[in-house]
Amino acid sequence: MLPTKAYAAYSAGDLLKPFEFSRRTLGENDVAVEILYCGVCHSDIHQARGEWGNSTFPMVPGHEIVGRVLARGARAGRHAIGDLVGIGCFVDSCRSCSSCQEGEEQYCQGHISFTYNGTEQDQRTPTQGGYSSHIVVDERYALKVSPTLNLSAVAPLLCAGITTYSPLRHWKVGKGDRLGILGLGGLGHMGVKFGVAFGAEVTVISTSPKKKADAERLGAHDFLVLNDDEAVSKAAEKFDYIIDTVSAEHDMNRVLNLIRRDGTLIVVGVPPKAPEIHPFSLIPRRRRIAGSMIGGLRETQEMLDYCAEHDIVSDVEVISIADINTAYERMIRGDVRYRFVIDAKTLK
Amino acid sequence: MLPTKAYAAYSAGDLLKPFEFSRRTLGENDVAVEILYCGVCHSDIHQARGEWGNSTFPMVPGHEIVGRVLARGARAGRHAIGDLVGIGCFVDSCRSCSSCQEGEEQYCQGHISFTYNGTEQDQRTPTQGGYSSHIVVDERYALKVSPTLNLSAVAPLLCAGITTYSPLRHWKVGKGDRLGILGLGGLGHMGVKFGVAFGAEVTVISTSPKKKADAERLGAHDFLVLNDDEAVSKAAEKFDYIIDTVSAEHDMNRVLNLIRRDGTLIVVGVPPKAPEIHPFSLIPRRRRIAGSMIGGLRETQEMLDYCAEHDIVSDVEVISIADINTAYERMIRGDVRYRFVIDAKTLK
Repeated sequence: MLPTKAYAAYSAGDLLKPFEFSRRTLGENDVAVEILYCGVCHSDIHQARGEWGNSTFPMVPGHEIVGRVLARGARAGRHAIGDLVGIGCFVDSCRSCSSCQEGEEQYCQGHISFTYNGTEQDQRTPTQGGYSSHIVVDERYALKVSPTLNLSAVAPLLCAGITTYSPLRHWKVGKGDRLGILGLGGLGHMGVKFGVAFGAEVTVISTSPKKKADAERLGAHDFLVLNDDEAVSKAAEKFDYIIDTVSAEHDMNRVLNLIRRDGTLIVVGVPPKAPEIHPFSLIPRRRRIAGSMIGGLRETQEMLDYCAEHDIVSDVEVISIADINTAYERMIRGDVRYRFVIDAKTLK
Repeated sequence: MLPTKAYAAYSAGDLLKPFEFSRRTLGENDVAVEILYCGVCHSDIHQARGEWGNSTFPMVPGHEIVGRVLARGARAGRHAIGDLVGIGCFVDSCRSCSSCQEGEEQYCQGHISFTYNGTEQDQRTPTQGGYSSHIVVDERYALKVSPTLNLSAVAPLLCAGITTYSPLRHWKVGKGDRLGILGLGGLGHMGVKFGVAFGAEVTVISTSPKKKADAERLGAHDFLVLNDDEAVSKAAEKFDYIIDTVSAEHDMNRVLNLIRRDGTLIVVGVPPKAPEIHPFSLIPRRRRIAGSMIGGLRETQEMLDYCAEHDIVSDVEVISIADINTAYERMIRGDVRYRFVIDAKTLK
């Protein structure tokens, strides 16, 4: 059993507070990991505050984890002691359904063990996430991280990064494609970096005109203010793909009208209220809406390798765990460029 | 000018009544057509009653037309006098946009001239539809109809037929695919016939258990009652594709859960209120929703030829024009199997 210092939400209304517990005994296929950094994802707030209605407490959030292997089980040979590893949104899955067999574990049709606010494969033992000093996981679910990158800025790749990388790869977005990235936050800024790296013509679509300079700095080729009626009307049917990263309520029909015939709106953000989609936004141009969720193990490793090769990381602000509640408030105000990352040393 | 006897809606609240007018002078590329049959589509009701908010009156509905060429213009050589032709949902389009150039005129990004409740390419002259004795159209927009089929039962192919044929072809639905047809009406019954003909395993999904026998008679392999919780739960993630033909309000999230990972819900029906689509119905299985609208000229001709070759027509009840208002009431009650078709002789 691995003594672990963490921060947890004790109930839906509460601030996060210190929490000490023991991680599971090292199983024969497990690695014990000393956490170095953990990114702070908007879904941490939704779940810590009980906003998705499926929260169990105490809850240690965090699923953008970078750490170092401290120990490994008798049959664990994938990572050496001292290796850097990344752990994303899930720490296990059924391994037998068609999605698991095809390396799309994120869509596991059996039981997926989310990194926190989930349960292990026994479907009883709660999982606890990365706002903590240590974690123990099956070595298959720990990915290799290159030591050449800034590790604090690697952490958000495990959720914000793969959530935008995966659909861009799945739909083969690249040269010759006009890509819109709706919302310039934790997900959006990674979408811009990947879209540009893959050769697409990238437009940031945002309600904040003041994000234009940042969009350009990130490499975007164009900027569209979503509540500028004239600009929106000029951009009608312009995009082959738009990735919608916005988790606040917004008019999706307005966004759909920016998409060309046979183009696709890829939804990765989850607004609190289900959006109304008018059939007339889809039918007269044979438009599509698709969801996409993080990525599988193979694809997440591919992304981490791609990022190491192309020097891509997240833009981060490193914080002490003591600042987590303030960080949540700042995220809700959109006051972060573009990801808070907890320095896990501050937990000790 | 071609004297034409018709039935029209004079205002949004009114019953349809006799209406006499003159069709346009025969242009050099036009054919003058004596109408034999015209199908009655649910969208006729929506528009005649002003339910889509874009109606102009007087309005002669009808866009499922089968007729015979009476005369042709000086440069019209595509059809001979006496030939059978079909006219569907549009009678002209801009011919220069990318959709028109690619033979997808139904998605014309310029001006499409819908067969009624639209305007000609001058964007002023109102178009009038097939509840009439005659029509004059550019010969390109009249399709060839085989004399081997029952002509009254061919008429609905021009809208109900192509609306289901086109998405099945576009998404290459066939052998090895599990196809759900949601709603067994004018569109749905054609979806079943085409799905079966293309080799898919077809399930009719309906809220009316009493439609089961009909579904089987039409060739469906299975039947699912949408409000049977147990059956729906057993069918979760079963379908590769579902074609949603329902134009009444319904819970699309319940339908989406029947679709497998990476499967597609194809929307061809237009409910009065925009459905709420929860992102969690899409994201955790990377599901897709797509719209689809009728078909282009080339594809509609391909469908008419396919139907002649495979002996596929609509199931119809032929009515006199005097019964049109009663027919509307019966359609709203779902009391038609599966399409009313006006015998245009009754207009004379």
